[in-house]
This record gives sequence, C-alpha cells and structure tokens, in this order.
Amino acid sequence: MFKIKFLPHNIEVKGSSEETIIDIAMKYGIHINASCGGAGVCNKCKVFIEEGKVKGELIEEKFYKACATFPLSDLIVRIPVESDIDRKALFKKTTKKKATFISKKIEELPESPYEKLYLKLSSPTIEENFSDWTRIKIALEKEGIFNPEINIGLLKKLPYILREKDFEVTLSLYHDPRKDRYYLVNIESGDTTSSNLGVAIDLGTTTLQIELVDLNSGKTLSLTSDYNPQISYGEDVISRIEFAKKRDGLKILSQKVREKITILIEELLKAVQKDFNSVNLISIAGNTVMSHLFLEFEPKYLREYPYTPVATEFPLTFAADLNLPFGDGTVVQVAPCKASYVGGDIIAGIVASGIVDEDPLTLFIDLGTNGEIVLGNKDFLMCASCSAGPAFEGGGIKNGIRATSGAIEVVNIDPFTLEPMILTVNKKPPKGICGSGIISLLANLFKIGLIDKAGRFVKNIKHPRVREGEDGWEYVVVWKEDSATGEDIVFTENDIENVMRAKAAMFAGYQILLESVGLSFEDIERVYLAGTFGNYIDLDEAITIGLLPDIPRKKFFFLGNTSLEGAKLALLYKNTLLKMEKVANMMMNIELSVYPNYMEYYMAALFLPHTNENLFPTVKNLSEERK
Amino acid sequence: MFKIKFLPHNIEVKGSSEETIIDIAMKYGIHINASCGGAGVCNKCKVFIEEGKVKGELIEEKFYKACATFPLSDLIVRIPVESDIDRKALFKKTTKKKATFISKKIEELPESPYEKLYLKLSSPTIEENFSDWTRIKIALEKEGIFNPEINIGLLKKLPYILREKDFEVTLSLYHDPRKDRYYLVNIESGDTTSSNLGVAIDLGTTTLQIELVDLNSGKTLSLTSDYNPQISYGEDVISRIEFAKKRDGLKILSQKVREKITILIEELLKAVQKDFNSVNLISIAGNTVMSHLFLEFEPKYLREYPYTPVATEFPLTFAADLNLPFGDGTVVQVAPCKASYVGGDIIAGIVASGIVDEDPLTLFIDLGTNGEIVLGNKDFLMCASCSAGPAFEGGGIKNGIRATSGAIEVVNIDPFTLEPMILTVNKKPPKGICGSGIISLLANLFKIGLIDKAGRFVKNIKHPRVREGEDGWEYVVVWKEDSATGEDIVFTENDIENVMRAKAAMFAGYQILLESVGLSFEDIERVYLAGTFGNYIDLDEAITIGLLPDIPRKKFFFLGNTSLEGAKLALLYKNTLLKMEKVANMMMNIELSVYPNYMEYYMAALFLPHTNENLFPTVKNLSEERK
Repeated sequence: MFKIKFLPHNIEVKGSSEETIIDIAMKYGIHINASCGGAGVCNKCKVFIEEGKVKGELIEEKFYKACATFPLSDLIVRIPVESDIDRKALFKKTTKKKATFISKKIEELPESPYEKLYLKLSSPTIEENFSDWTRIKIALEKEGIFNPEINIGLLKKLPYILREKDFEVTLSLYHDPRKDRYYLVNIESGDTTSSNLGVAIDLGTTTLQIELVDLNSGKTLSLTSDYNPQISYGEDVISRIEFAKKRDGLKILSQKVREKITILIEELLKAVQKDFNSVNLISIAGNTVMSHLFLEFEPKYLREYPYTPVATEFPLTFAADLNLPFGDGTVVQVAPCKASYVGGDIIAGIVASGIVDEDPLTLFIDLGTNGEIVLGNKDFLMCASCSAGPAFEGGGIKNGIRATSGAIEVVNIDPFTLEPMILTVNKKPPKGICGSGIISLLANLFKIGLIDKAGRFVKNIKHPRVREGEDGWEYVVVWKEDSATGEDIVFTENDIENVMRAKAAMFAGYQILLESVGLSFEDIERVYLAGTFGNYIDLDEAITIGLLPDIPRKKFFFLGNTSLEGAKLALLYKNTLLKMEKVANMMMNIELSVYPNYMEYYMAALFLPHTNENLFPTVKNLSEERK
Repeated sequence: MFKIKFLPHNIEVKGSSEETIIDIAMKYGIHINASCGGAGVCNKCKVFIEEGKVKGELIEEKFYKACATFPLSDLIVRIPVESDIDRKALFKKTTKKKATFISKKIEELPESPYEKLYLKLSSPTIEENFSDWTRIKIALEKEGIFNPEINIGLLKKLPYILREKDFEVTLSLYHDPRKDRYYLVNIESGDTTSSNLGVAIDLGTTTLQIELVDLNSGKTLSLTSDYNPQISYGEDVISRIEFAKKRDGLKILSQKVREKITILIEELLKAVQKDFNSVNLISIAGNTVMSHLFLEFEPKYLREYPYTPVATEFPLTFAADLNLPFGDGTVVQVAPCKASYVGGDIIAGIVASGIVDEDPLTLFIDLGTNGEIVLGNKDFLMCASCSAGPAFEGGGIKNGIRATSGAIEVVNIDPFTLEPMILTVNKKPPKGICGSGIISLLANLFKIGLIDKAGRFVKNIKHPRVREGEDGWEYVVVWKEDSATGEDIVFTENDIENVMRAKAAMFAGYQILLESVGLSFEDIERVYLAGTFGNYIDLDEAITIGLLPDIPRKKFFFLGNTSLEGAKLALLYKNTLLKMEKVANMMMNIELSVYPNYMEYYMAALFLPHTNENLFPTVKNLSEERK
C-alpha cells in the first residue's frame, strides 16, 4: 500500500497499485469530477501528480486521467481547481465489513450430504452367494449405514459395475437429513472418491449466481453469474406469474431457467476440465416464485389471496426428474421456503448468516425486488416481506438499469459546482443508474440541498444540471456527450418519489417487526445486509435517505450473497437442509398489510430521512451542519 | 347330481348334467376306450344307455358317445365289451382337495397397502395460508399418517386438483410395510374411493396368470392367463438367460413380457368397463429369473457359479418406471426372492399357504420346470430347488407338449386289452402329452406291467401298441388316424427315462431336505402341492411312479396357484410384502448338489417307484396284488 496525499485538501489516504486514483479518492469521499464513470473518455478527471511514480494515461505534462492511472509509489496528487470539493462534504465512510463467519464455517472439514465411499467387497462364493444388492447392504452396515434406499434403475447397473473391477466399487450415498435416510444414488467401479463436485445456485429473479464446489475439500473451483433468462418474459415475479398463465408459459419459464443453469454449469465445468457426470449434488436457493418456476410448480396462487404456495418443502429430486443432463444419481436439493413472499433465498440466508445459532438480536435485510427482512436470534425469528418494488434494482426509475456494465453505481456531487463524480460498473461509459447509484444520487442531492425533505427539487437553484425536463424537475447526471446511450442520463422527481416509496416500505417494515415483539431500534445488536446489492451500497448514504435505521455504524455487517452461501452450506454440511426447514418452521411470518400501524409508519417514512428526525440523529446533525 | 350306475361293473357313482359320461367314468377310474381325448371323433367310447335320459350324440340306437353325452337323470350305463375294464384296475381315486384356508383369508376385510382416503380439506385463509402440500400433510396427521413421501411430479398437480372441487380430494396412499412408510402416490378431486383396483400376476416361465381384484372388497373381478411370450425366445429359464446375452436380448425379453401383461390387463379391464388409470397396484410373483427379466435385471449371474441374483428384494417401483401404461401413481410390487433358484413364486406360495403361521411340519412342493420344495413350519423353513428338468411340462418328451388344448392330460390303460382311455385339455383332438398325462401314462404302464421297475418295456408282450419304434421301444397312445397331428402319438423308453430322472431328482430332494433337519417321511404332517399343474395330477399315480412320497393320502392338499394367491394377498393385506421378506430371510436354502448323499439318493430313486420298495408300501402292495 502506498500513501497518497490529495491536495489542496491535504488528506493522506492509502491506496494500492491495483486501484485507480479515482477509486482511491471515491473510497475516501474525495471528489474529482468524472462523467464517464471511469471509462477514460470524458477527460474531466484529470489530476496533477506532484510527486511520485504512476502508471497511467497522460493528458498533458504531469496531468493524468485519475480513472486510468495507478500509483507505483507514494504520491502527492493535486486535484485541479475545476475538480475541487468542499471539505464539509468530506466524511469518512464506514469501512464495509464482510462478515467472516461464513467462510470460517466452510473452511471446516466439509461433511457433504453426498458422500462417496470406496469399498472392496468380497467376491461371491457358493456359501455367500447372496444378491449383489444384499452384498452392498451388508458392506454398508459395517460402515454404519442401514437400510439405504435404491431405485430400480441403479439396481439394473449393479451386476456390471460390481464385476468391472472385481467388486471394487465407489458408492455414492446421499443423506437426506430431513428423513435421516441414506440413498444409494450411484455406483462406480474402482476408486472414484477423489471426484465429487457440487453446484450451489442462487436463483435470483434477476441474476443467477452459480458456484462449482469440490465436495471433498469444500473449495470453490469456479463461479459465474448471469441474468435469469426469464427476464425476457417479465422483469419481476409478478409479471412472470402472469406470463406463466399463458399457454405453455409455465413450461417455458421453467425450461429457460433450467437451460441457462445447465449452460452456466457447463462453462464452470469446462474451466476445470470436467463434464456433467462429475456433478453429484446441486443445491438451489431462490425466492418462492423462482423455486416454483424452477420446479414447474403453478405459481398463480402465490399471488392470489390468500397467497398459498404449492409446497414450501421440496422432496429429494434427481436431476433427471427435471430433465437436467447430469448423471442419473445427481441429486437436486431446493432450499425450503416459508411463505409466498419469504423464500428459500431468505431461509438459506438466515442459516448462512448464523443468526439462528447466536444470541445477538439481529435485523437481517435482503434488498431485492422485494425487500425481505428478518428479526431475531437463536430464540425467535420474525420475518416480513416489504413490497418495496423494483426501484433498488433500477425498476420504475427513468434511467434506472440493473447493475450491468456501464451502470452508474457510485455518485458524488460537489456541493458548490454541483458537478458529479461517477463510477460505473466495469468502468464502461455510463448507460444508466443502478440501485447503489440511485441511493448515492438521492443521498447526495439531499445532502447538498438540491432537494428538500419531501424529495422535491429546490427550484431557486440555477444550474444547467438542475432543470425542468419532460417528466418534471430533474438532475442531469451525465450529459449525452458522455453517455453510452447518446441521451442525457437524468434523475427525476418521479424517480425520487419511487425510491422514497420503496425505502419507506422497508423502514415501516422494520418498525412493525420490532413492534410485533415489543422492541425498538435501540435493541438491535446487529444489522445484517444481505444480497450482492448490499455489498455495493454506501451505509451512510443508505441511512441518509432513511433506507436503513440510523444506529451505530459498527452494528452493520455486509454479508454478501447469503442465499448462495446457504446453498453452498447445504452442499457441504449434512444437516443444512434440515436446519433450513427448522428455520422455516421456527420463523413467524408477519403479513405487514394486516397491521393497522403499517400504513401510518409508511406514510411517516415518505420523507428524507423521515418525518421524525429524531429517528435519524446523525442525519439530523448533518442537515444542521449544512445549514 | 344324478346317480350313474356303470355296468357290467355295477358301480354306482355320482355325476352332474355338466359332466360328460366319460368324465364321470374317468373320475372314478372306470375305463372306457377313448382315443380322441374327448373330441368326439374316434367313436371308440360308445356306451349303451340302459335307463335314464341323456343329452348327447347318438351313434346307433341307445348307443351314445360317452365323450359327448351328458346325464339328464339317474342313469344305468353299460360299457360294451370292447370297452371293458378289469375290476382289479379299479381303485377309488383320492378326492382332490383344494385347501380352503387361502380363500378364507381373502374373505376377511381387505386392508390393502394401497389405500384411498377421501378428505374435505379446509380452504386456505390468510391466517392459514400454508402451502397446498402442508395442508395435505396436516390433514393426514389427523388420520394418523405422518411424514408421507411425495414426488415432484405429484406436487406439480396439487394446486389444480385441490381447487377442482373446492379442496375435496381423494388421496391415494401406498404403505410400504418394509419401511413402514406412507407414499402419497396420487390425488384426485372429489370422492373416488369406490374405484380401487389391483392386479395380481403369477409370472411363470411358461404361463402368465393374471387376476383383476377390487382392493376395497377383495373380490376378483376377472381373471385370465396366457403364455409368457418369452417362450418364443427360449422354453426354459436357461435358454432365456442365454437369449438375454444377445444384443438387446434382455431388453426384448423384458419388453415382451411387459407388453403381454399390459394386453392381458387391458382385456380384464375391458370386461369390467375400466381403463388403465383405474389400476392402482400391481403385485407380481415369479421365479428369480422371471423377476429379473421383468425388471430388466441382468440374469447371467443367476446361472454362473456361484449363482448370484442382482437383487432378491425389490424396492418400491412405479409402473411408469417400467414403461407400463398405467397412472403415474400405480405401484408395482414384486415378491422377494430367496436365491437364484428359489424365487418370489415360492416365497409368495409359502406365505399364501400359511405354512409359516402354523405348527404342522409341511412339505411344500411346486412342480414346474424346476421342482421347488420347502420343508418347515412356523419355526423353520428349508428350501431346495431340484433340477427336475422340463419333463413334467412336456419337455424332453418325444410327443410331450404343454397343457394346451389337445394335450392328453389323463390316461387309463385297460390291463387286458392294453387299449387306452384318454382325455385331452378342452376335449380337442390329441396333439401330444402334457405333464399330468405323462405321469398318468407312466403309472399305468407300470401298474399293468407293460414296463418293469427300471422303466424298460417288457418285450415279450405282443400288441400293436407296444412296438420298437425309431427311438427304441414305445407305447402308442394315439394312432395317427385319431391324432390332431396326423402322426402316432407315442411314449418311448427315452421319455420314460427322462421322467424318471425328473422324479428321482424331486424325491432325492425331499430326502436331503428331511435329512438336513434330522427328520424322515413319517414326520411329515402335510404335503402341499402347489402350481396349477399340481391340480391336474393324480395323487396315486404320482405316488406310483415315486414322484411323491408314499404317505397317507389324507396328508396331501392341492393348493392351486399359490404364487398367484400370494401376489393377491400382497394386493390386499398391508404386511404381506414384509412377511414375504421375513420368509425369504428365515428360509434356509439348501444347495442339493453340495450334499454328498444327494447323488446316492438320486440314483436309488431311478426306479419305479424306488429301489427301496419299503419307502412305497402301497405301491409295493399293488405290485404284489398284480402278481
């Protein structure tokens, strides 16, 4: 790490040779004008390297593009006056914490429910000429495995495989912890115990995250993600449920996602020179609608009053039953759901987070199309689903997009020049604004006083970026010259209203959950932020807009994709699926809409940060300081 | 019933208007010459009706064909001198007993493992909006059924079926007694409990016997039988195992028998206006090779030393897994086997016979291609398979045929004229000799002294029917003029040798089984004769040739097709399959060939009835009487 001193602010921070100067500046809240999101095309982010060595793109002598320049030694960097920022706007961001306990668990010796057992069976003799299957059962009894299940298909193969290498075989056993029952699912000749792969899948409405895992070592071999191809048939769960009502609609949705999963797994396998037959266990966690669509279960009643799933616990299923092209013995386990709007992703997340094993009262928040929240600890779990809508995924936002390449994910606005500093996903020219960018924008507009508590633009400000557009007042984030779309990228009052509705739904949800057990925000010992989205949001900004409660920052933890982590735990530890079912059973689901206070809390939260400023002491201070 | 007096013997017997006069005569051992087996073409069986009314075919005034004439009143029937018999040859036949305990059992209230349960479920409410599957599980818990299994396919259907008739449904539950586990295998809207059919199948090497059963009442609705179509690929199990080694051989054998079963069940269903979907449970019992071929299990190792089956217990299987065109929830249960040569037919038979529940020491004999024998009672069971060969099914016999239409099944030979009286299956012109006819012939030839103890023709007899043919000495049973084949039907010294080998194998088997537990023939309290073949053989004739032990006739019982009865019990009573597995486990299998005494006993039994005449006191007396 090098020491980087930014002038004229005289702030010294740390940075590595793998971060660009703009990344380092953004990390510490130091503003440098930037319009192209780091794509290196707008030339607005030029900085003067007063001392030190860099590797980067020179614009003119000693002036470098901050978005394309990396430190090679300690540096003194002067931000030219046109990129200057106000010191008041500076604040140290909470260091994002990635909770470590999950990875710790996975570093324990895995004990997968899919176990391979190499056995040298005795050859038949006239005295011991029992059947092949009996021979195996006797051998398994010696290993402490009694009454394993087998199907007729595998029985057919037994005599050939047993005799291929003189009764030396590897048995693949799947243990279903919910029934405490062993299934003999495959048999191979010789010793194949060294090859035992599993796949963990977070089946998101928008994104599929897939991890290829070695079930012997617990190590992740490769991982990938891609869009859920069902997006073409509807952006959110509701439009997919609608599509499923069409002729063959359900079948199509189910096929599409299975096909995509297959393709992604194939890619992961190729990367480690393996084929479909080496995948033994697939573990999936998704929300209730996604789980239904994956299994080709009718999703209609999830949405119709009184919102009943087909099933919330899913029996042992083989890949072949789902027309997935894996081996006959490949097992697919789907994380149990709680209710129509509290799915396997949340259950998996709760198990992965460890809340259910620990004392501290924890508020678990998974921000997605629906914001799911869970409150509890090892003694109780309350959950609710907030109809937050898709604003945090870019839905209902004029230039909102999902967090793809070119999506604006971080924004800083200079309080005096009102010029933005933006960073985009993969540093591509900006296409639109994604969830974290939206929070960032709203927080910035509010902090620098461009909008008021009600989310309305302060119209007496004369600045080309603040204007009345065709959809009402708006802030121009990127001029069309710098955008990938050739159009201005704007953030409108309508957009703000939508974001505020979403965050108000979340906040009212926290309040009802707490109230239902007679607790308040002060009682919360930890806030766990789940979902990949959670990893990109800025804690203070999210608190500033009232999306997260204003409690000490040290209580917040970013967990990453807990749904995927949970799916992975179910690959690696025998009792995970059972634990998930216990969590689902233990959890009390609160239907927010039936709580009379809910609407009142929601209305009160439709302000920045909230009608009751006392709920947001640090934001209140900030506002007062600004004044 | 009418009184029928036969002259000149002055023997009065009973007969009904549904029996021909020749049938009645045969039943009581009264000889009437008959060459066409009852087909009504040879005109040799003419009788003079002295008194009474008959319905039948008149040859000349008052002379009727005995094979085509039925009594309409009490009769006095004179057998003309050309059809006379010797009084000495007369003996009262043991009345064939059909053991009654099996049917008694089935008349008990059935409690099928496949149970239909009509439930009016509560409709979902916002307070009780648990999943469809959970709703069903809760309802089942109230019925005392916990943790039922379900598969993904049925789950898919749940939401539609539940809502078809407002949550009134009929659940189909299969209870596997071996695991004490319920499987929810089907669900229908409304109340369909009244329709619950099962099919019992005796999967024989030669014949398939199929019974359609109402699982609610236990009543047989219809039954049928046909050849096992695998016959085209090999007459016996060994040739089928050989055929299975060919490319696709196993697949073909498996497909053929499944197809045939499907066709036969379809016929049975048509007769009661039902379709495939109404069949819920199929219960099959067959020998180990037949069970393997049905399930498409490799049969090769059944025959290769040390004779190991693929499996002897078969897991719960669905019809769909076997490509059988029944409903998705149709369960197929296959009776467990003991070993390569002691199959599910015997296990099913032992359970059906009740031996395993009772005290008396019983010798259970199933005469088929292989003669299987079991000795025991509720405390122990010993079994053995005698390589009797196919002689009793007409195999290895020059004019031997299976018991089809036109097969000679009963024979009587006049000791003076040496003319035969024969009856054929279905009274069709004679085509050949089947098992019971073979025993009958051999016993008759021996009784009247045409052959000696060694089974050789007494060559000093001059009679056109006793001659030296192309295969050595033989007895002409039917002249070509009377046969359906246009050839003489003969019984040769070679044939006799083959039959003697077969019966010797059986007898030596009884001896070894008894010896292995330190018992002798006197200790046997019951002899149970199983198999449809058993129903047609004449007890005294079978004892005369030494096929059955010479013990009091009242100890013998004909049980009929116990394999089919066992399969049926498994349809109707929950614990049958478990009981079968217990029987299979309890049974000790004796490999006769490894017993040093076996060969000695076998050699000693290669005489009529046996080298040791003291083992056959009643036959000895008969011989002495003859002398």
